[in-house]
Amino acid sequence: MAGLTRNSPEVRARLPGERVVFGRSQPMPLDCGVALGPFTVAYRTYGRLNPDKSNAILVCHALTGDQFMADTHPITGKSGWWSNMVGPGLPLDTDRYFVFCANVLGGCMGTTGPSDPDPATGKPYGLNFPVVTIADMVRAQKLLIDHLGIDKLFCVIGGSMGGMQVLQWAATYPERVFAAVPIACAARHSAQNIAFHEVGRQAIMADPEWCGGDYLTQGRNPSRGLSVARMAAHITYLSEAALHRKFGRSLQDRSQLTYGFEADFQVESYLRHQGSTFVDRFDANAYLYITRAMDYFDLAAEHGGILANAFRGTPVRFCAVSFTGDWLFPTRESRLIVNALNAVAANVSFVEIESDAGHDAFLLDVPEFYRMLGGFLSGCAEHRGLDRG
Amino acid sequence: MAGLTRNSPEVRARLPGERVVFGRSQPMPLDCGVALGPFTVAYRTYGRLNPDKSNAILVCHALTGDQFMADTHPITGKSGWWSNMVGPGLPLDTDRYFVFCANVLGGCMGTTGPSDPDPATGKPYGLNFPVVTIADMVRAQKLLIDHLGIDKLFCVIGGSMGGMQVLQWAATYPERVFAAVPIACAARHSAQNIAFHEVGRQAIMADPEWCGGDYLTQGRNPSRGLSVARMAAHITYLSEAALHRKFGRSLQDRSQLTYGFEADFQVESYLRHQGSTFVDRFDANAYLYITRAMDYFDLAAEHGGILANAFRGTPVRFCAVSFTGDWLFPTRESRLIVNALNAVAANVSFVEIESDAGHDAFLLDVPEFYRMLGGFLSGCAEHRGLDRG
Repeated sequence: MAGLTRNSPEVRARLPGERVVFGRSQPMPLDCGVALGPFTVAYRTYGRLNPDKSNAILVCHALTGDQFMADTHPITGKSGWWSNMVGPGLPLDTDRYFVFCANVLGGCMGTTGPSDPDPATGKPYGLNFPVVTIADMVRAQKLLIDHLGIDKLFCVIGGSMGGMQVLQWAATYPERVFAAVPIACAARHSAQNIAFHEVGRQAIMADPEWCGGDYLTQGRNPSRGLSVARMAAHITYLSEAALHRKFGRSLQDRSQLTYGFEADFQVESYLRHQGSTFVDRFDANAYLYITRAMDYFDLAAEHGGILANAFRGTPVRFCAVSFTGDWLFPTRESRLIVNALNAVAANVSFVEIESDAGHDAFLLDVPEFYRMLGGFLSGCAEHRGLDRG
Repeated sequence: MAGLTRNSPEVRARLPGERVVFGRSQPMPLDCGVALGPFTVAYRTYGRLNPDKSNAILVCHALTGDQFMADTHPITGKSGWWSNMVGPGLPLDTDRYFVFCANVLGGCMGTTGPSDPDPATGKPYGLNFPVVTIADMVRAQKLLIDHLGIDKLFCVIGGSMGGMQVLQWAATYPERVFAAVPIACAARHSAQNIAFHEVGRQAIMADPEWCGGDYLTQGRNPSRGLSVARMAAHITYLSEAALHRKFGRSLQDRSQLTYGFEADFQVESYLRHQGSTFVDRFDANAYLYITRAMDYFDLAAEHGGILANAFRGTPVRFCAVSFTGDWLFPTRESRLIVNALNAVAANVSFVEIESDAGHDAFLLDVPEFYRMLGGFLSGCAEHRGLDRG
């Protein structure tokens, strides 16, 4: 895939992996009232589906993740975001399970989103793309498992926004899910998290290159705004302790302060790098839409304000996971989920993993996390009657 | 002061309060190596200096504060940022003490900063203004107390960046300070806080209206970038609990989600308001310079890497204050200061005030904080031999 150095319509058309078109004859109704179709879902699979299709693990990706979780990323050339987790002999063991991940609706890696052409006009949707929700993302994934002939997912798993999708799956399609692992997430987005997202969106929309969302048609790109949005968000993914350990007040390539506005400190240089590389692989409008979906997420609100009602009578086996150093989705948010599940006597375990890495811990090789996850899946596999691979 | 609706050179020339020009014959050396002069210090006084000039309290303001701490603000028309703290019968009792506050060097409320004319060219300094440090700000204040004939300040007090100045005062001019109250601050800026500042600076510098810092000369204004910077910073001033209590997920002027990018949630609307009003009273380049001064602050580094060395043999009486809900300058930062002071057997008390308001708690009417501060000052006044007012 050499030459795919930047996300663009041409690049997306050449991305590796599977894709399937839905909603041709019957558009898919969205929460906002619009019916969407046709639309594409791009996904990636690892391992093999067994004959009775009982070994499928759906991984739901986070805000800026994508389906290339265990591949070399086709644009950045880096390892997939869960390449330590998904593969032969790893916790999501591809010798045993069929593991797959679909780019979310509204995304920019092959599944239809605001940078794709609107069939009505042939031009990129831009802000004419309907605002989608976590439930809409899950609806699209449900069409995908129908298409794959999977009656019941062995497990749905994901961190951060991925965890929101896991909760939505369990709430909306409990009969289609055997086990669910919501990691480092919440049943609703907090005021502080909405606030951080709003800063990111305002940074994008303040960029004149954004052109009211119409930048693709006009051949422009709000990369500076998107870069600032990414920088602000990136701070929230790390803990203060991790930033201190990684960078402290160390200077970048210099022995003393320059008394200027260049990146004197390593942490500045690191953040600028995070911002500038992100814009090569991500679409600014997709960032607006996906953050909005997270802001709107409030599972209790869909169930009369009582979170437990989302899970009443659920047959799903849950394992909720949080990390001690995560201040974006702190442990208390996972406890609220576990409390709601306990209130309906659901089958639920809960593990708070010690880590000072911050929210990003779910992407890192944290041994206790890996052992626990592998163990939970093996236990569920036994209950599900999956043969040892 | 009707008509002062926006900070500009014309408006600054008409601001109420005192001002004095320094560095005419002998420019003031700055940490960066440049000698600055002439430059203006604008300040505001409350109460009366007693005959032996022993009752002066210098208040040091924070990043976006100014000298109008107990006035109606001449631009916003709002009460001063410490109007509950400074006045007759209040903890900083103007019947008893002479309380004054100077706009910091690099600021935009009358003291010389990047938006003022460079004497060398007659045009606004812009990025030709030298990068100043907390120590430079304190040097300018020291010239001011010399000018006022104050041999020894009764107290230096301030929160956040104001607290940094308090520490710098005590370290650099211990013989000129009787008591020092550093509030909600740190002896050095953390990696996380540098990171947040860098996001704000990048938001400003990404705005094409910034024009490489030359916007005043070109008749433009990077207000969108500055607004985004303010929004990002504002989140860090509040606690998650305060945001949750104030806003939660409440919607703004509507009964349901709009499925769009307007401010659906009250917290979004609040943040946008914070951003848009800030740009009327603050200068974008001043924001760059003052955040940089905070980033550069590292009192231990000036003393061989050992913070205690900054205070060895100090005669100053210290009272350090932190707030439980402050995650920007958490209690552990104050403890490091107190530990250093204890290591040199300084006279120091330390109070951690219970408040879930976040960093902004030092600006709010927190009764325990007010009682404690009033008590500390009264005790010091007795030691100092100040008559009861």
